[in-house]
Amino acid sequence: MRTTIKDIAAATGLSVTTVSLVLNHKPSGISSATRERVLKAAKEMDYRPNQLAVGLIKRRTNTIGLLVPDIRNMFYSAIAKEAEHACRKKGWTVMLCNTGDQHKRELEYIRVLGSRGVDGIILGISSDGNDEKTQESCELTRSLGIPLLLLDRTVQGSAVVVDHKKGGFLATEHLIKLGHRRIACITGPSYLQGSISRVEGYRQALSQYGIPFDESLLVEGGYMMQNGEEGVLKLADKQYTALFAFNDMMAYGAYKALRRQGKSVPDDVSVVGYDDIFFSEILEVPLTSVRQPLEELGSAAASLLMEIANGETENKVIQFEPQLIVRKSTAKPKE
Amino acid sequence: MRTTIKDIAAATGLSVTTVSLVLNHKPSGISSATRERVLKAAKEMDYRPNQLAVGLIKRRTNTIGLLVPDIRNMFYSAIAKEAEHACRKKGWTVMLCNTGDQHKRELEYIRVLGSRGVDGIILGISSDGNDEKTQESCELTRSLGIPLLLLDRTVQGSAVVVDHKKGGFLATEHLIKLGHRRIACITGPSYLQGSISRVEGYRQALSQYGIPFDESLLVEGGYMMQNGEEGVLKLADKQYTALFAFNDMMAYGAYKALRRQGKSVPDDVSVVGYDDIFFSEILEVPLTSVRQPLEELGSAAASLLMEIANGETENKVIQFEPQLIVRKSTAKPKE
Repeated sequence: MRTTIKDIAAATGLSVTTVSLVLNHKPSGISSATRERVLKAAKEMDYRPNQLAVGLIKRRTNTIGLLVPDIRNMFYSAIAKEAEHACRKKGWTVMLCNTGDQHKRELEYIRVLGSRGVDGIILGISSDGNDEKTQESCELTRSLGIPLLLLDRTVQGSAVVVDHKKGGFLATEHLIKLGHRRIACITGPSYLQGSISRVEGYRQALSQYGIPFDESLLVEGGYMMQNGEEGVLKLADKQYTALFAFNDMMAYGAYKALRRQGKSVPDDVSVVGYDDIFFSEILEVPLTSVRQPLEELGSAAASLLMEIANGETENKVIQFEPQLIVRKSTAKPKE
Repeated sequence: MRTTIKDIAAATGLSVTTVSLVLNHKPSGISSATRERVLKAAKEMDYRPNQLAVGLIKRRTNTIGLLVPDIRNMFYSAIAKEAEHACRKKGWTVMLCNTGDQHKRELEYIRVLGSRGVDGIILGISSDGNDEKTQESCELTRSLGIPLLLLDRTVQGSAVVVDHKKGGFLATEHLIKLGHRRIACITGPSYLQGSISRVEGYRQALSQYGIPFDESLLVEGGYMMQNGEEGVLKLADKQYTALFAFNDMMAYGAYKALRRQGKSVPDDVSVVGYDDIFFSEILEVPLTSVRQPLEELGSAAASLLMEIANGETENKVIQFEPQLIVRKSTAKPKE
């Protein structure tokens, strides 16, 4: 059982009041010999203050709530790992909450975390969350007086984000430089910032290299592997030599569907993914992908939020640059 | 800001004592009209009791600490998701701690969780943890008076485990039935129960089908992809037609190394993995693998631990059965 102040009082033969005064560093007329005796006993008996009591008094718990749509998604597990690491180094802990990608549960958890007295929330918006719903989550958090930081989304307050316009540009430019002109896209949901920005980058690259934009080459997906498979089916009657999937999972789905159509990657179709998750490297045809700096993102999110909670800094948005990782899934188009 | 009892007192014109008595369901002489007035105001003002204070009084926080070696490992992220889901349904929350696969941090976190007043800990032992170190973590948790449940390891107290001997048997029997007699293994660390049990199952299957055991076909790995690559290199001068990798990550590594040796899966070498993580299905040669029921494991772990914390059940060990999932990586040996 946990050592209490009473236990130390019993062991030292001192009063509970005396022990309490020493352990709570209250100025008092206690002799240094007595003080020593208490501290020695506390150390030997492995005394640790009850953080619930400390939390109530300081109104601080040194705890961050981390809400993610799905912890099995490597995007979030990589961020969670680093956020947790950054917190641990400062003696903070992380409460993990998995919203199952549902806005309703997101709200539910924000309330729970509020009642648990968390000092801040890192929120990965569920993918059914349009701007209005995101706003609702932000408002609820604000009304509970909890500092909030959004992952990869800017609505209000603090956020860590990736420059997805640049990501879209890098992927497209790479394909153009290889000689492709008919570049299809399987996008994310059209109401999500990240997807809109990738499309902007795609169009910017086309425009910069004088290639006309053809809307019929864009198919809307939903960041799941099956959306990649469906996307390739929807593109069946289109002429294209390259495919930009807006995340790696959809690229894997595209691989599967292209294989079924008897098309080879990259000989018949070059494929670029986005995220550069672990498995992209070990596929039989390793996937060229746009890497998001997830480790830095997770670490920066936690550090920034702790600083805000400590009143050491103002709300701010930190933006990270994506990077193109070229592997074997992209090549010159066939003559 | 959070609504306090004072706010409700101010809004209703009642005393703080009266509001407190009503909201804390204390028997008292308060009229039902007054009671109604308080409850209505509490609802309208979105009053929620401060769980820190509730925790101090009840000595309960309805929080579980979940310690995992690496949340990016799908084994743990799948368990975490379901454990968290089971907790949420009961109004409990999960504190996620990532030990970075280090025993030292495991101890550190157990202490932190103790001071945070968690009602139980689910522990995924770090892979540098031999029996002695595992014992140390168990002892520390016990000495803090925190109910403990081990993931996939039985040392003392409660656990959820998978019958890995059966898993080893199923994988080996499948290969034997296809006609293989020279079956190599890339094992886990030799001091880990899970690996020892798989070897037992492997030997049992060989013995049952009258195939002599050849120790030189066993290579020790460490559950990382590179161990699979190294394992295949170490087996370079051995005759074998099938390979049983003790997890899927090592099977992927084996795929890579076999490809480099110009060997095809399954034409030259049949490969069976273990875990059946998501990517095994989408590989170009989908991997035959032993599936661990991770969702059930995670859910059962959380449910059992909550029951123990509530004093509703005794310590116990729940064992789950693995299942062989046959895909394209296994076939008859070449004539």
